[in-house]
Amino acid sequence: MNIGVIGTGNVGQTLAAKLSSLGHAVLIGTRNVAEKAVSTGKDGKSGFKEWLAANSNVKLATFADAAASAEIVINATHGGISVNALQLAGAKNLEGKIILDLANPLDFSHGTPPRLIPELSNINSLGEEIQKSFPLSKVVKTLNTMWCGLMINPDLVGGGDHVNYLSGNDVEAKAKVKSLLKEFGWKDENLFDLGDITGARATEAVLPIWLRVSGALKTGAFNFRIIR
Amino acid sequence: MNIGVIGTGNVGQTLAAKLSSLGHAVLIGTRNVAEKAVSTGKDGKSGFKEWLAANSNVKLATFADAAASAEIVINATHGGISVNALQLAGAKNLEGKIILDLANPLDFSHGTPPRLIPELSNINSLGEEIQKSFPLSKVVKTLNTMWCGLMINPDLVGGGDHVNYLSGNDVEAKAKVKSLLKEFGWKDENLFDLGDITGARATEAVLPIWLRVSGALKTGAFNFRIIR
Repeated sequence: MNIGVIGTGNVGQTLAAKLSSLGHAVLIGTRNVAEKAVSTGKDGKSGFKEWLAANSNVKLATFADAAASAEIVINATHGGISVNALQLAGAKNLEGKIILDLANPLDFSHGTPPRLIPELSNINSLGEEIQKSFPLSKVVKTLNTMWCGLMINPDLVGGGDHVNYLSGNDVEAKAKVKSLLKEFGWKDENLFDLGDITGARATEAVLPIWLRVSGALKTGAFNFRIIR
Repeated sequence: MNIGVIGTGNVGQTLAAKLSSLGHAVLIGTRNVAEKAVSTGKDGKSGFKEWLAANSNVKLATFADAAASAEIVINATHGGISVNALQLAGAKNLEGKIILDLANPLDFSHGTPPRLIPELSNINSLGEEIQKSFPLSKVVKTLNTMWCGLMINPDLVGGGDHVNYLSGNDVEAKAKVKSLLKEFGWKDENLFDLGDITGARATEAVLPIWLRVSGALKTGAFNFRIIR
């Protein structure tokens, strides 16, 4: 499948590398290709240039090009700039397509732990805002309640038995995303359909407890299981 | 132990009955004792009068009297009126005492699922608001992330192995609350200390996902387990 990943940060890299290793044709989109292609790490850390060299099947592209040829577009940008990044990708390029949104509307400007962006929480959500901004696309919110290492490798903890929510207005789009999630190792019984895209209000609101627990455990390698 | 339960709703009743069955001396507090004592159910449902008759070891009292003799005061009121109810109980009656706060700042005025009250969420919480309002009391936020049936009987699901958070500024107060929780059947390893009272921001923010999952499962008899 042709997949476009919007965002070249840690989450975007993790998703792109995994999807590529599964045999998908992956374009990873950025604002400025020329700049990103040569961006090296700071303080001796490996940068995007090195990552791209190590993942040579993934192609770097503009947001627009990454979206244009894709069947599924993954939003892996910071929640505060997601709508803008997708606008740069272009509504036309996103039309009729699935936008798999795994971002969170976090505001880091007041220190840690980050807050939720007020206009995108409680009675709204990033998932809904994206759906409203791109009414001809099919937004599926999923994977946003965990560390990216677990998104693509659920077996890393608890034999993979922990919950991943899906919210979205289009049933077929959710089915397609579910099938992609199964390629990552997600079991059907751990994929929890919350209904329409307003479910994103609930899953984005998981972040405060996720961040606090993560701070206490000093790891992101955990998730929640629903016990009945 | 002398325990005062503030609030005579379903949650208050559940806590008071359990505590009384464990041998504690329980006063359950209400705004208007004379009125509450004779309040019967609507539509053939059993009311408070019937509940009190069935739980005759629990004594009905004013908010103030329920707090005055108590060592631990449990806030089981609706989050939107909790501070007011505790003010009626009287700061003097709460001084130096543990306020076990299990309420949530939910706003039901816009239908279901309820929203979080904006002024009491994201960068504030009900737990913090109570602590600020009663600086000489020791607020411990706990039990607010689940249905009241599970609060007092964790074994009801998953062999009791699911998480209950504690947040509070006073370490001794948290230890005392932990010991009370153990009387309910909570195991040490499932009691997760989130640190100071700002942890209430995180646990109160669990409500949106709790409500949505509860709606999908059509039960409140579930909880979350942390999987590492």
